Amino acid sequence: MTGPAIEIPARRGKAAHVARGQHITVINTHGEQVVDSWAFNADDVSEFMSMEHTRAHTLRLVPRVGDILRSNRRRPILTLVEDTSGGVHDTLMAACDRYRYAFLGVEGHHDNCADNLAAGLADLGLKVSHVPSPFNLFMNIPWSQDGGLAFAAPPKPQPGSYVRLRAETDVVIAFSACPQDILPINGRALQTVEAHFRIE
Amino acid sequence: MTGPAIEIPARRGKAAHVARGQHITVINTHGEQVVDSWAFNADDVSEFMSMEHTRAHTLRLVPRVGDILRSNRRRPILTLVEDTSGGVHDTLMAACDRYRYAFLGVEGHHDNCADNLAAGLADLGLKVSHVPSPFNLFMNIPWSQDGGLAFAAPPKPQPGSYVRLRAETDVVIAFSACPQDILPINGRALQTVEAHFRIE
Repeated sequence: MTGPAIEIPARRGKAAHVARGQHITVINTHGEQVVDSWAFNADDVSEFMSMEHTRAHTLRLVPRVGDILRSNRRRPILTLVEDTSGGVHDTLMAACDRYRYAFLGVEGHHDNCADNLAAGLADLGLKVSHVPSPFNLFMNIPWSQDGGLAFAAPPKPQPGSYVRLRAETDVVIAFSACPQDILPINGRALQTVEAHFRIE
Repeated sequence: MTGPAIEIPARRGKAAHVARGQHITVINTHGEQVVDSWAFNADDVSEFMSMEHTRAHTLRLVPRVGDILRSNRRRPILTLVEDTSGGVHDTLMAACDRYRYAFLGVEGHHDNCADNLAAGLADLGLKVSHVPSPFNLFMNIPWSQDGGLAFAAPPKPQPGSYVRLRAETDVVIAFSACPQDILPINGRALQTVEAHFRIE
């Protein structure tokens, strides 16, 4: 990893351009922080990384090293090339949003991944018409054989662990350091912290 | 069930307005036909039934009787009130589309659920900017404990079995009798047939 570390500030979003063939390394700096992740075709943001299309091709609930992440036009957009985190990620849950926190009883503003996506893209002069279902890195959503799901704490803190992705086309990548501090998805301490990524 | 049966023609789509409080009964007429299903807020089609938001609240891979299906604003849009089909449905897989059949080696046109959604809505003078991940009624996508998925044939034919949904707001409902005839998702005979629904 030689590129400079770019911060995804705690509770905030960050987006960046990545050229085809470059790698993005997403680092769980403190070891328990979920990072909601999106990718868009840099030439046409109506083409986006799609969990529902990806699952139909990988035939897995959670991508593994070597798996291709596909767009809503079923084209390769990213490939998962390395993962030192233990492989606990999620493709099932929507990004948190203002409606989520209202549902959880929060009155007034709460930081959320949907707004963080919009803010990150806005910094690049971009806007999307809807929030695609994100690839939730380092997020622990266990399933049971009868189809039950849970929002669980990370299995164990792994500071500095990372996922490495290769861009299969020119993309805009966007991340949110998930501000969820009501459920234990970012650790039982309910602390939300920064994460980092490198492009190289 | 007293409303007239409305046909979802084989390999085609059909949409309809449903008032809040009305029920929609989706009938697997011949017993092995997958029906891709969508719902939109009738007053603003940018609000749509969302599998990724629904899963975050039901905490299930597949909704069961009594479960509320939620929109991308996390509001109740439909409730699953009755199910005589055995409960095998899917929330994980994108609608089939032109890109899917190209991937599967089809040259030229192949009917597909994404185009069927657009055609059904166009009959009502409506258009949406993207294809939400559908609620795939009667579709068998088994999962394994290690997260593996499969496109499987229906467990057994159940002609006339149905799912009953209650509209929780004024909605536009849309269905596609899935034209998938390469994978065995509509039965091992690879035949695609009509289904029906009633509104009452």
